[in-house]
Amino acid sequence: MVAGRTVRDLRHDSRFTLLRSIYAAETVTRQDLVQQTGLSFATVSNLIKELLSAGIIVEASREDSNGGRPRARLRLAPERGLLVGVDASETYVHVDVFDLAMHRVGRHEHPITEDTTDPERVMAEIATGVRTALRRHRGTDVLGVGVSLPGQVEPEVGVSLFAPNWGWKDVPAQRILQRRLRRSVHVDNPLKAATVAELWFGHGRQVSELVTVNLGTGIGAGIASEGRLIRGVSNNAGEWGHTTFVYDGRPCRCGRRGCLEAYIGFPALMAQFAERYPGHRYLRASGQTGFLAAFRAGLMADEPEALWLVDLLADQLGAGLADLVNMLNPRLIVLTSWAALALAPWLVPRARARMLSEAITGSAIMVDLVITAVPHNPVSTGMAALALEEFLDSIGLPSRSGRVLRDRVVPTA
Amino acid sequence: MVAGRTVRDLRHDSRFTLLRSIYAAETVTRQDLVQQTGLSFATVSNLIKELLSAGIIVEASREDSNGGRPRARLRLAPERGLLVGVDASETYVHVDVFDLAMHRVGRHEHPITEDTTDPERVMAEIATGVRTALRRHRGTDVLGVGVSLPGQVEPEVGVSLFAPNWGWKDVPAQRILQRRLRRSVHVDNPLKAATVAELWFGHGRQVSELVTVNLGTGIGAGIASEGRLIRGVSNNAGEWGHTTFVYDGRPCRCGRRGCLEAYIGFPALMAQFAERYPGHRYLRASGQTGFLAAFRAGLMADEPEALWLVDLLADQLGAGLADLVNMLNPRLIVLTSWAALALAPWLVPRARARMLSEAITGSAIMVDLVITAVPHNPVSTGMAALALEEFLDSIGLPSRSGRVLRDRVVPTA
Repeated sequence: MVAGRTVRDLRHDSRFTLLRSIYAAETVTRQDLVQQTGLSFATVSNLIKELLSAGIIVEASREDSNGGRPRARLRLAPERGLLVGVDASETYVHVDVFDLAMHRVGRHEHPITEDTTDPERVMAEIATGVRTALRRHRGTDVLGVGVSLPGQVEPEVGVSLFAPNWGWKDVPAQRILQRRLRRSVHVDNPLKAATVAELWFGHGRQVSELVTVNLGTGIGAGIASEGRLIRGVSNNAGEWGHTTFVYDGRPCRCGRRGCLEAYIGFPALMAQFAERYPGHRYLRASGQTGFLAAFRAGLMADEPEALWLVDLLADQLGAGLADLVNMLNPRLIVLTSWAALALAPWLVPRARARMLSEAITGSAIMVDLVITAVPHNPVSTGMAALALEEFLDSIGLPSRSGRVLRDRVVPTA
Repeated sequence: MVAGRTVRDLRHDSRFTLLRSIYAAETVTRQDLVQQTGLSFATVSNLIKELLSAGIIVEASREDSNGGRPRARLRLAPERGLLVGVDASETYVHVDVFDLAMHRVGRHEHPITEDTTDPERVMAEIATGVRTALRRHRGTDVLGVGVSLPGQVEPEVGVSLFAPNWGWKDVPAQRILQRRLRRSVHVDNPLKAATVAELWFGHGRQVSELVTVNLGTGIGAGIASEGRLIRGVSNNAGEWGHTTFVYDGRPCRCGRRGCLEAYIGFPALMAQFAERYPGHRYLRASGQTGFLAAFRAGLMADEPEALWLVDLLADQLGAGLADLVNMLNPRLIVLTSWAALALAPWLVPRARARMLSEAITGSAIMVDLVITAVPHNPVSTGMAALALEEFLDSIGLPSRSGRVLRDRVVPTA
């Protein structure tokens, strides 16, 4: 059975559109919202009424409307509660705390050691991070917690299906976190989180066809079409890093040969650099972060080795981006990761030129390569946005950036 | 402004779901449709009422319902009019004529010579094909004509943006065809047409995440997610043949190097064969069609050269398919082209195995590789389905497999 979309689904979409406009401004009137969203005045009025009575928004002030009935200026209600977004990786736990207006009111980050791989220990680190970040906010309601985990995550059942660097298979991450935090927790994958952040608070406000790109240890993409996140059938769409770059080429950690990640993933990039400049001092810096810092300092000092590497990366990344353009024909490709942002001034112009010269004409003329417009960490921001979606669902006001997921597993307190 | 979906859009989706169920059976009751579609009885009843009064469906019979009010069995009304689908390529014009129930009631195919590249001459060939196919049906209404053209097509404005093998740029194909045929004509690209056919009449009835794959002179994919065709921002999504297979590898006709099409597009495949078996008799057969026939005969006779080539193709295709699986995480990959169908018994098992072994686990376990379930030529069938969508739009009953396009250019008779 392939069911049609329901009126309920339709209200999701309209509410999502409306809330994004509300989040984009300090205050708005109903008239502004009609103009910005293309929804009818009746629809806007109905949705606003629901949001007012749920305490999501409040009347900020009233203004004169040329002698007519005064117009209410509306704003989000930050005091309604907190949203927590977590970006957990193999090397750190990053936590951002937002009020309901998505102003960041707290953050916490701590490293985790590479030998912390046992699920209970990783979850303990995440729970500690969340508790620490929330310490200053005792007494304020926490509306939801969203946690991004590396690898393949199935948010509908709250399970980390596969996290190769931790050796995880089918870890019930949501259940463990809910037990430790005694709160409702939503889990997802960083590619999905960054794309949801872009749709709610970034370029997705203006553009409905976009692809977000993560450049780091792993390489991945988040796909949005018609303003909605494409998850694929089991939430694994966007594994761009594991598409062929050189058939039968360098071995990749996924088990295949020649994947894009085996060339421009950060460990692979370091390997390409080491082949050209064996024993170079950039390589003696500690880990990937140290290498990136040394590489970036080299770029700022115009060192030829750094310029060689950024050109190599720009060319290979640009070719990979042309593949995304040809495959998906987006309006924007959005770079979201710390590595991409750190290298952007040197990387983006050449990667953009390569992408545009290699993509088919009809798609190249429509696309640009840009940096994320999300103000904070896109992964933790996106997880907070997913927690917001969960919360809105729970109070009967669904508003979704993507497919409606099945009902959550009930927290086991 | 990013507008939300409207109630009108929602009715499109429900009507699309309902009509697909009606097309899937000879006759159905309203009760069957409620069960098959998941729509409410009220919705089904309203939509059926509209379709009855527009003459799209009729009551076929009434049946007893255990003493209750007799249930009407409904069927499509073939006599309502004809739909014409055209698959035009560089070497042939293929026309299928369907009644409104999508039974094929006529077909015509004729070759076109390789020096026929002038837009007016190509359009004259297409118009001749359509007129010939319709000759036996004088007096029956033609509800719409859909014409697939190779290359980049912009259906919203009816223009062939770029057809490299014909040297076309910005040819107003729709306008020329409408002038010649004095009928409303819809144009699109074969990848989109084949995917629309699969959504209306093929595997898309059961599966909402699928990718159709064309294997032929060109290589391409059609992407459907949540049961809707993904077009991208300018209808160019799916140019899978022009994604990297070997970075800086063989030159491709698109101007890049190392595209997948430069390896497994039919001319490239023949070149790989010629390198291994110079002057082989398969290569002396006339053109690609001749080569395919000789190659297939070789497979049937277990000739080692043919087996070598099909294994090479299966491995390279399988790796490319794994890229599609990793990028899009579909439930099905559907092979649609004549070449794929001709080689299927030898090609599919090995290509499937390679695809599954190279895709990431969480996506590999969800996907299968299958042959199209569309009974006739998927491209002409899909163009007839797009003509049907246009016709339903024109009578106020929109029902769409994808994005709602802007209003058509008015025919210039």
